[in-house]
Amino acid sequence: MKKNVLIIGAGGVAQVVAHKCAQNNDVLGDIHIASRTVAKCEAIRASIHEKGNLKTPGVLEVHQLDALDIEATKELIRKTKASIVINVGAPFINMSVLQACIETGAAYIDTAIHEDPLKICETPPWYGNYEWKRAEACEKAGVTAILGAGFDPGVVNAYAALAAQEYFDTLDSIDIIDVNAGNHGRYFATNFDPETNFREFTGRVWSWQNRQWTQNQMFEIRKEWDLPVVGTRTTYMTGHDEIHSLSKNLDVPFVRFWMGFSDHYINVFTVLKNLGLLSEQPIKLDNGQEVVPLKVVKAVLPDPASLAPNYTGKTCIGDLVKGKKDGKEREVFIYNVADHKEAFEEVGSQAISYTAGVPAVAAAMLIATGEWDVKKMANVEELPPRPFLKVLDKLGLPTRIRDEQGDRELSSTF
Amino acid sequence: MKKNVLIIGAGGVAQVVAHKCAQNNDVLGDIHIASRTVAKCEAIRASIHEKGNLKTPGVLEVHQLDALDIEATKELIRKTKASIVINVGAPFINMSVLQACIETGAAYIDTAIHEDPLKICETPPWYGNYEWKRAEACEKAGVTAILGAGFDPGVVNAYAALAAQEYFDTLDSIDIIDVNAGNHGRYFATNFDPETNFREFTGRVWSWQNRQWTQNQMFEIRKEWDLPVVGTRTTYMTGHDEIHSLSKNLDVPFVRFWMGFSDHYINVFTVLKNLGLLSEQPIKLDNGQEVVPLKVVKAVLPDPASLAPNYTGKTCIGDLVKGKKDGKEREVFIYNVADHKEAFEEVGSQAISYTAGVPAVAAAMLIATGEWDVKKMANVEELPPRPFLKVLDKLGLPTRIRDEQGDRELSSTF
Repeated sequence: MKKNVLIIGAGGVAQVVAHKCAQNNDVLGDIHIASRTVAKCEAIRASIHEKGNLKTPGVLEVHQLDALDIEATKELIRKTKASIVINVGAPFINMSVLQACIETGAAYIDTAIHEDPLKICETPPWYGNYEWKRAEACEKAGVTAILGAGFDPGVVNAYAALAAQEYFDTLDSIDIIDVNAGNHGRYFATNFDPETNFREFTGRVWSWQNRQWTQNQMFEIRKEWDLPVVGTRTTYMTGHDEIHSLSKNLDVPFVRFWMGFSDHYINVFTVLKNLGLLSEQPIKLDNGQEVVPLKVVKAVLPDPASLAPNYTGKTCIGDLVKGKKDGKEREVFIYNVADHKEAFEEVGSQAISYTAGVPAVAAAMLIATGEWDVKKMANVEELPPRPFLKVLDKLGLPTRIRDEQGDRELSSTF
Repeated sequence: MKKNVLIIGAGGVAQVVAHKCAQNNDVLGDIHIASRTVAKCEAIRASIHEKGNLKTPGVLEVHQLDALDIEATKELIRKTKASIVINVGAPFINMSVLQACIETGAAYIDTAIHEDPLKICETPPWYGNYEWKRAEACEKAGVTAILGAGFDPGVVNAYAALAAQEYFDTLDSIDIIDVNAGNHGRYFATNFDPETNFREFTGRVWSWQNRQWTQNQMFEIRKEWDLPVVGTRTTYMTGHDEIHSLSKNLDVPFVRFWMGFSDHYINVFTVLKNLGLLSEQPIKLDNGQEVVPLKVVKAVLPDPASLAPNYTGKTCIGDLVKGKKDGKEREVFIYNVADHKEAFEEVGSQAISYTAGVPAVAAAMLIATGEWDVKKMANVEELPPRPFLKVLDKLGLPTRIRDEQGDRELSSTF
């Protein structure tokens, strides 16, 4: 049994992780939140108390930490006696936090791939550039490191594993579909930091097609899907973390990721991009000022955190898997629907942060109980999916299945 | 006889003014061009020599000037012995240049209303907020000051005066229609300084309806017109300078201005405006920099002057006047059609700059010959229209009339 969790980060996803850990502190033990800006950790702690989300009386502490400083991170892990670290900070700190875990023996969980701030859209497979290089070190140290345990990547990897193990003999394709059908009521806003959001869509799109890495332009390939609850939605093929592990770990010729974008989003994005307003290169104004246009766009857009209180509607994220079972072609859609307003009422964040944060806590609980304490590095599809999906069901992210037999909850088969 | 012209400004309109003054330096005498950036003046001078547009050997000089500095402007007027100043700089310098003219006795001409950089769309009549407050000072000093002597305002005011004097006993309405049916081949660009252009369309739309000032939103009122040469075109009711003087100086219950916009222009404009990127108020970036968003948009857009070489197609600008003559209802459209390519070949600017700049030179020539040297402040409709339209005809902007008798050149009645 592993106990005591150190959460690194204090943004929207960290807020969800902290609330959910607090709701399960009978399993997880002490809860510690650390970030560069301790005031943000304090705000999260206050909101946990305000909502009465600390299940049993116990430790809920905040700490100042620069997570790029490996020694400081090791010291905090030791001081807090944390045996599980949940890294939900900026994507630039993965490698230093992982190193601190390897050196202290703490289990490591993150929800997104490591990024170098100076590089956009590196060559595939992305995990091979950073995390997988430390796999041997994890195994040698007997350290459990679960990579990409958010929703996508994360839950969608478990959906893919479940499909491979239970619904198919051979896989033809996995299409991961992520649609936010919510409405924040503003003219335009991004759900994450606008700078990060726009950076994601200005580079190349990598997909796994016919067992090969394939390049496309953003918004080049469009596809409509008829989805449960949210209806027919337009998506575009987008690069995403999970393609880079699923293509290695599962025997499947096609893995693609589809992100829902409204015509309105694309129109605003296209205007800004074509005018040069998404550029990271400084330009000179006629008064001599040097300014980065993207930073000006960021400054005029709403702060994503400010959207949560008025966010309504639902998200639908899932895997459409095609392949053969008993010699017959079949198609299964495994998915979850989350609600923005319900998420906000429960943990003070909208559903985008909720779906990303809850799975990391589910992973921590499975490490705590030993079921996922594998003492090596693993992507989610390498771990047994059913225990994970069972915990997610209890934590507020139930799994549903739609196939030729209809649309039903996975829990009926638990 | 007044002689020697000082042109203030070095943008697209100034380029036209300088070329046209040079083509008529036998009437106008020495030509001086002054701007904050002297290199831009030098480029204009070089293009005049290149095109052989200096009619008779004479003075063509350039000067550095901050036209907000009244003393420096007075000094330059005296030094150049200019008796006519044509102000075609930014709309923020009108009042300081006018003051320099009042104090030195030079005649003053501009082509657009004065603006305070931090105010958009002030209360009507706009001239009452700035220029008209100096009318008494002009009269006392015996200084000729012709306001708004471009095309619109300017030539369209003369069209209105001509209609009132010759075609109608009573006026019902004046609809000024401005359509640019040209194509610059770029994703998006404004035809003159983007800052000035966008400022025109971000505020309320003021129109003179039933002898009252009426407010609407931009792009709220749309109307199609069947126009000579350019065909059926979509326009939107827009606020514009000339409404503010015509409503005072002519006895007419309705004065409206209609500007042609493509759906693409409106889309880009709407995105930028709704995001707050057209704001003239400074915002703070997360690095602490203070930046005016509109100036950033200006910096990323093409320099309007750069469009001219590839600009094709025509402009159509005119007054649709309705009223009674000899007890009968009638309708007259008085207009001009200009060609982008022809304008570029003659003076190196496109037709938008051409139509704005040529009338200012016509006004200067009428001051030089004494016909418009009225020794007071006047809007164009307060001056005899025929001499102005005759000079414009010779300078390249012929007037046409379309009514129940057909479509013909005004010159047939000269």
